Amino acid sequence: DQKKQSLNPSDPFSADPDRHPVLHINNMKPFNAEPPPQILTESYVTPNVFFFKRNHLPVPQVDPATYKLHVEIQGPSGSARRGIVSLSLDDLKNKFPKRTVTATLQCAGNRRSDMHNAKPVKGLNWGIGAIGNASWSGASLRDVLLAAGYAPDDALWARHVQFEGLDQDVGGTTYGASIPLRKALSEDGDCLLAYEMNGEELPADHGFPVRVVVPGTVGARNVKWLGKIVVSDVESSSHWQQNDYKGFSPSTDWDTVDYKTAPAIQELPIQSAITVPADGAKVDRSDEELTLKGYAWSGGGREVVRVDVSVDGGKTWRIAKLKGDEAGSPPPGQAWAWKLWELTVPLPADTQQLELVCKAVDSSYNMQPDAVLPIWNLRGVLSNAWHRVKVTIKDDQDE
Amino acid sequence: DQKKQSLNPSDPFSADPDRHPVLHINNMKPFNAEPPPQILTESYVTPNVFFFKRNHLPVPQVDPATYKLHVEIQGPSGSARRGIVSLSLDDLKNKFPKRTVTATLQCAGNRRSDMHNAKPVKGLNWGIGAIGNASWSGASLRDVLLAAGYAPDDALWARHVQFEGLDQDVGGTTYGASIPLRKALSEDGDCLLAYEMNGEELPADHGFPVRVVVPGTVGARNVKWLGKIVVSDVESSSHWQQNDYKGFSPSTDWDTVDYKTAPAIQELPIQSAITVPADGAKVDRSDEELTLKGYAWSGGGREVVRVDVSVDGGKTWRIAKLKGDEAGSPPPGQAWAWKLWELTVPLPADTQQLELVCKAVDSSYNMQPDAVLPIWNLRGVLSNAWHRVKVTIKDDQDE
Ligand SMILES: [Mo]
Ligand SMILES: [Mo]
Repeated sequence: DQKKQSLNPSDPFSADPDRHPVLHINNMKPFNAEPPPQILTESYVTPNVFFFKRNHLPVPQVDPATYKLHVEIQGPSGSARRGIVSLSLDDLKNKFPKRTVTATLQCAGNRRSDMHNAKPVKGLNWGIGAIGNASWSGASLRDVLLAAGYAPDDALWARHVQFEGLDQDVGGTTYGASIPLRKALSEDGDCLLAYEMNGEELPADHGFPVRVVVPGTVGARNVKWLGKIVVSDVESSSHWQQNDYKGFSPSTDWDTVDYKTAPAIQELPIQSAITVPADGAKVDRSDEELTLKGYAWSGGGREVVRVDVSVDGGKTWRIAKLKGDEAGSPPPGQAWAWKLWELTVPLPADTQQLELVCKAVDSSYNMQPDAVLPIWNLRGVLSNAWHRVKVTIKDDQDE
Repeated sequence: DQKKQSLNPSDPFSADPDRHPVLHINNMKPFNAEPPPQILTESYVTPNVFFFKRNHLPVPQVDPATYKLHVEIQGPSGSARRGIVSLSLDDLKNKFPKRTVTATLQCAGNRRSDMHNAKPVKGLNWGIGAIGNASWSGASLRDVLLAAGYAPDDALWARHVQFEGLDQDVGGTTYGASIPLRKALSEDGDCLLAYEMNGEELPADHGFPVRVVVPGTVGARNVKWLGKIVVSDVESSSHWQQNDYKGFSPSTDWDTVDYKTAPAIQELPIQSAITVPADGAKVDRSDEELTLKGYAWSGGGREVVRVDVSVDGGKTWRIAKLKGDEAGSPPPGQAWAWKLWELTVPLPADTQQLELVCKAVDSSYNMQPDAVLPIWNLRGVLSNAWHRVKVTIKDDQDE
């Protein structure tokens, strides 16, 4: 159901790149699409073409030869700006060591459809595919901030690092977001100004030529088509930092919501989903067993330590087999990448309907909440209740 | 129901200190006791006499004049030990700057009774009072490790900091635990070798003369009566690090448990509880409203950002008023102290039975799990499902 791209020059989206036809499109302009779930568990690293695309605005056309990244230390409110530097793509590639980090990115709206089905929310109707795992390469954000003149004394006033994209709406407003200064500056934070994704040049849909990768942090802060970095005492003033991407109580509705009362989403909570079998799948009784596959991930560098799987709606549980990075276990607090999991169970003899459920546990022993309604929020973000999939067993005599 | 202390000199517990009679005793020898819940929300800082006592062994008698803390850098497996220093209490007080951190400590078994009531577990039957908040003062663990000769090169092999207590069983085995090196060394980790609690000399039950305070980390790693610190490439070999204080799946029982398969509990997950009213309380219809009080806390320095309260068993929710440190909001990742919360609700006209529920949210938007059984584990640790309290409304005509 992918539409032919418009060639109308008055359409700001007409220069958007081609996309893989297998993607499920949640919105065409701006482009928002996710892969079929089973693709996610076919490889530990998600191929670029299948990695979910979440654009807020048209894809900007950036000439890598003239690209400039502006970096500045804003100074405390009202004081003079300093440390204003301008880096070319060659500068980023040649003046800073190239670092590679394998990190999972997840959209705040991943699994929004599960929340919408429980009670309507406003937002793109993502399934379970607004998540992907990639190997990102680029300059260390910390290295660039230090090169731009960030000094220990700045810790007295600096609190946030703001990012501005080169993507803009028809009025000229650009995408923007910020992260806590500590995350940006920490040697263990592993923040990158990435120009490669899975060993390839960063694709247009993922921020060519440079995006921020903030491991363990919601996709929305991993600003693409990066134009500007500002060290500041305040968060980004952008719509997406101030008035979106925040979590609220189930009791908060559009009449009562006050965005100032909730913190901007940064680290995401523990998440997991079943990618195989698909909801509504039929399995043959003669198969005798069923293999389930899925992913699990937690924000903030917390490692997934266990995934529990149920085939009876959550009454009894089994432990899935986890598959992490072949390179071995990351240091504590730096588990940026997901774990894929798998479990083969005998088909129970006494039923034709299976309700498959998964829930994951992270290294701080955070658990997923059981039900959707108690975590419901008006924007449908942070949808991380247990994932449920219904499957029918076809008895041989049915055929 | 506090027993008279034995004066039998052959009883290793006979030198245990006096305790406040209001404490509810879960075990006498070793002493384990918690305050009545409503005391927890009477002050932001928990008075020392009411702070829960969780001893694993008899309270050791330590002479502060001759007390020595041994600190060593163990070297990678098989290599020579170095950096062996011995610090007196005066050294700790005079050779290092005195630092003060307000931090909540929670026992891994807090709220175990809720889990036990759902399905029996092995462990002391703690209510909701195995948690407390105190202002701790002492030397920075980081400062002491650096003074003992910890050098940047040690990061190549060092992974853990082990602690050994002076408390021991009849066979001479001492209490022990360890924490990740990064937590111990981080300037933002705020780990202390504390010799004061709420401005007073550390009480005997809380580790006199020196205990470790590891903010954001389960009580069991905050070793009391500290005798030894060892920087090592491995975790503490103690029973409590290796074969206790770990979380397991609901499907794991005493026949199948393999302690090697789960990580030692360090950071604790989001928690909250209702301290007022008590379960089973009766309220008068003529009061027209009901005030609920409670606490909420999360491990790892994650701040509590919201507490949702329900009076109808979790069908609808209201937002409680949070009360944190008067000094203001902590930096991100350093929210070591709990928040107390309060909410006054009108008594619903249409019912005589209220089921009060609370659930908290932390700054990474971690939520508490809804139900107990899906997080049940054989040791009854990490009991952080929604807290539920039943209350009866007495109609005026009942009197
Ligand atoms: Mo997103
Ligand atoms: Mo504990």
